[in-house]
Parts: sequence; structure tokens; C-alpha cells
Amino acid sequence: MKFAFTSLGCASALPTVNRFPSAHVLNVHERLFLIDCGEGAQIQLRRYGFSFLKIREIFISHIHGDHIFGIYGLLSTMSMIGRSADIYIYAPESFGEILTSFLTHFGGVFKFKVNHIVIKGDLPELIFESKSLEILSFPLNHRIDCYGFLFREKRPKKNIHKHLIEKESLTLFEIARLKDGEDVERDSGEVLKNEDYTYIPYKPRSFAYCSDTAPFQKLALYVKGVDLLYHETTFGADMEKMARDTMHSTAADAAICAKEAGAGRLLIGHFSSRYKDQNILLEQAIEIFPQSAVADPGVEFAIPLIKT
Amino acid sequence: MKFAFTSLGCASALPTVNRFPSAHVLNVHERLFLIDCGEGAQIQLRRYGFSFLKIREIFISHIHGDHIFGIYGLLSTMSMIGRSADIYIYAPESFGEILTSFLTHFGGVFKFKVNHIVIKGDLPELIFESKSLEILSFPLNHRIDCYGFLFREKRPKKNIHKHLIEKESLTLFEIARLKDGEDVERDSGEVLKNEDYTYIPYKPRSFAYCSDTAPFQKLALYVKGVDLLYHETTFGADMEKMARDTMHSTAADAAICAKEAGAGRLLIGHFSSRYKDQNILLEQAIEIFPQSAVADPGVEFAIPLIKT
Repeated sequence: MKFAFTSLGCASALPTVNRFPSAHVLNVHERLFLIDCGEGAQIQLRRYGFSFLKIREIFISHIHGDHIFGIYGLLSTMSMIGRSADIYIYAPESFGEILTSFLTHFGGVFKFKVNHIVIKGDLPELIFESKSLEILSFPLNHRIDCYGFLFREKRPKKNIHKHLIEKESLTLFEIARLKDGEDVERDSGEVLKNEDYTYIPYKPRSFAYCSDTAPFQKLALYVKGVDLLYHETTFGADMEKMARDTMHSTAADAAICAKEAGAGRLLIGHFSSRYKDQNILLEQAIEIFPQSAVADPGVEFAIPLIKT
Repeated sequence: MKFAFTSLGCASALPTVNRFPSAHVLNVHERLFLIDCGEGAQIQLRRYGFSFLKIREIFISHIHGDHIFGIYGLLSTMSMIGRSADIYIYAPESFGEILTSFLTHFGGVFKFKVNHIVIKGDLPELIFESKSLEILSFPLNHRIDCYGFLFREKRPKKNIHKHLIEKESLTLFEIARLKDGEDVERDSGEVLKNEDYTYIPYKPRSFAYCSDTAPFQKLALYVKGVDLLYHETTFGADMEKMARDTMHSTAADAAICAKEAGAGRLLIGHFSSRYKDQNILLEQAIEIFPQSAVADPGVEFAIPLIKT
């Protein structure tokens, strides 16, 4: 049961030969969620062996080119390789017109529907839910409407301690109710307390994506206790003023957010092209939050399943 | 005085890890003309060291994604690196709406104007002219409106045979008229025949770009005598029916066109992703037209200046 993040590009606005713009993949139980879609995302997906067929949802943090210019080519390629399953793009409101214009000129041959689900609001909102996963959007603080995303596994169904099934002669009915988290009262009046009979089989995992943002107080609350936190790190300490002016974060901002949130691990990316060596930024992050790493494109950062 | 072609991508509709979609550069006397602009063109321009500042004109053959999805990122990047000089995009009519939609959402901060010059017509048309160069568009035969481009140096001003200047005591007035190609009648009644006194200093060079097209009779006429011909070669002999159905060319089609046109050299590109080894296509072209080569991305194909 995989829960793993892979970046496809760690450039900010100006891509370079070795750095593609923002696009990332979260693999949750072999279903791929694409997060942002900068130019060349389709090339990077191929490079790292991700099947286009496993992507159904795309999450766009905001409508700046370095986060969406890859959507045109990706959707066109999906059509050319014969896709028929609908696509769901979660993006701020202004994406609607862009999508309409694109589909008018290039979508005539598509055999699948491209649905735009509008992200909005000043508070975290549940935007996606499946049997095992929920995804929330939360507002960031950038020059235009911009959102982060929190992916978290739902608490799994409880398991019954096996040795008690026989010992207490549990019936199928009693097992089902215990698994649902309820206490069970037997005809004899005996109460089987849920906590005595059950356990949570594994700790639900979580990942948060903080796209372009100036630091702000509430952000750490939005991503509280997350296992893996991706936080943009466009600048280093030398460019703090530039970071404030452009509403971006420094390595220290990212690390402070990770620390305050009590995150398990921090991944930094979205580097300004002026930093040829991103380790300068990593060192600044590590000083504040030691569990920091560069979100190197193509490297899979998996959150292990921890049995309880 | 350079006149050289470099491809940035030789993929057709489906880009692969090693093949970017169509985009090419023609360097004419250190001025760069961008021909088509598939996704990732800006990355490839950087990779091969082309300065964005030297590009003022962009030529779009037709409005299929693999020929234009790089325009968004390229224009945005030009803006971010501080461009102020206007851009001229030569493209079929339907590009107008696409450009308008793009500029509405992303062009607000541009400090330069993006001009769309509409290409149209059933015959070759002069679409650009400078002191030393002219560019013609000509219709191709694809599923939608599609155009090729012919770049040719103008005939240079004539030079005077140096040894005759002193021998015949040519005046500055006489030299100027001879250089303009005229005969000169002296007061004595003597006529200085232009052909006796002048020569063309070098042979004007030419390059033609035949983008997506099914073969058709007139194409060889449009590119008659061209020094360097780029002709799409999406398919090989094994996929001739597919080539017809999709209105593309095979290696043989490209080579026949080059032969009938009396081209100096043929470059093939725009390969279907099914051909992992493009030499199969090259061999088929060479059989018909030996001066064929693959338009390998990043390789400069220069036409030497031949003095006469």
C-alpha cells in the first residue's frame, strides 16, 4: 500500500536545462494524483515511468504559467493515446476560461470529458473523498488566488485481536459491529468494550503540498502533524526581501513551517534559477528543521506503512 | 554571415523522453527565426545556447498542439527576463483567439507587444522582407490549414572587378550605377556594359520548411532549387496507409520532393514515436535522395557562403 511523493520538476518561474517547472506525483495505493502541471510534465511523467492511465485527478495550485503550461500537452497526449476515462481538474476559478478556450481549439477529438472543479474559500475544505483517502484544499498567501493540498489516508477499519475471536466465541455480527468501532452488548448483559477487542491496523499517512506562498501564521495549523510536507523554497536568506516582495518563501520560512507543524519530514523545491546549487538552500532549512531534503526530481519519497 | 538551421525537437505528436516536439531555429546573419514552437521549446533553446533576445519573429506552421504548446512558456519567460522588444508571430488565423485568451490571463505584465500576422492563401506569399532576406509562406496539404516557409537571402549588391576601377578610371557615380546593375553611358558615347564590370559576390542561400503535409505535386515547385530542405517524415514505408489517412509524409515522400525540387540537401524530422531508430527512415530517404540527413536536435546545419 504505497503512499509516495515524486517531484517532476523543482524549478520556479524560469525553467533551466536541468530543472523543469512545478509538477509532482503522489502515488496513493497505485492511484496517481498529479499536483501542478508545469511545461514538460508529460515528458517527465514518461521519463520516470508513470502511466498516464493511472492519473484521473489533477490539482492546480494557482494560475501562474510555471504551474499549468504543461496541461495542454498532457491532455492532448492522453487523447492521442486513446484515453476514454474522464479527467477531474481541481483548480481556482479562473482556470475555467483557460480550459474552455483550450477545449474549443484542441478538445474536439477528445473522447473523455475534462471536468473543472473550482477550488475556493478562506478555510481548509474537503475537495475529494474516496474509501481510503481524503484531500483538502487550504488557502495560501501568494500574489493571486493560490491553494495548498493536504492528502491523508482515512483511519482504516479496525481489526479484531485474533486470539479473542475464538476465546470469546465472537459471532460474525459482533465482529462487524466491533470493526465499526462500536461496543457490543450481549444478551447476557455482558458488554464487549471496543477498545479491548480492536486495534487500528496501521497509522494513516499524510502529505501536504504548500505551493507558492509567503509565510503566514495559520499555515502550520493547516498542515499540523503531516508526515511529509512539500514547501516551496524559492529563495535563500540572501534574498529575503525579494521573497517578501514576490510573496514567496525562503528556506527558513519552509523549515519554520515544518517545525511549527510538527511535520515528519520536509521536502523543498521550486528553486529560483539563481541558485545553481540547491544545497545552499537545503543547509539553511536543515539548520532549523533537520529532517529536510531536496525534492529531487525522479526520487520517490515513500512514507512507510507503520503497523500499530 | 551565417545561414544555419538547428532543430530543437524531432518528435511528432507524442513527445518522448529524448525527443521534444517540433521547434527549430534558423540563424540568418545572427538573427534567429523560430519555426514552430512545441512544448519545451524554451528549454531546448537554453540547452543549445540560443539567446531569447535574438528572436523577434516566430513562424507557426499550423495550430496543432505539438507545434505551438511551447509558445505560452516561451513568451512568459521572455517577459520575466525583462523583454521590451515586440514579438511578431506569423500563424494561421485561428491562432488569434488562442493568443487573445493567453494574453488575457498571462500577458498583463508583458512589457512588449505580441503581434499576430495572419498567414493565409492558396499560393506562395511574401510575408517578411528585410534588407537581405525575404520569407515566403506556401500552403501545405494537412488536416487543417497548414503552411510551409521559404527563407531566402536576397541577391546581394553587385561588386565591381577591382582591377577595372583604376584601369578605366571609374568615377564614384559610375561605380554606384554599375553596382545597382545598370549600364553606364559616358559623355564620350562609350557604354560600360554592366556584365563586363561587375559580379555577384556570393550565391544567395535558401532554406525551406515543409511542416506536416501529405505529398502533393506543387510542393516541389514551391521549394524549387532550395539549398536546404526540411521535410517532415512522420512515417516509413511500412506505414504508408497511416501516412495517407493522417495526411502526413513518408521518408520516400520527403525524398521525392527533395529530388523533384533539385534541393541541395534534405533534412528529415517529425518522427512518429513508433520509430525508436530513426535511421530506418533515413535509409529509405537516402535510397531516393542521397543527400539526406536526420535533423538531429542541437546539430547545426550551416549552408556555406559560396563566393562567385
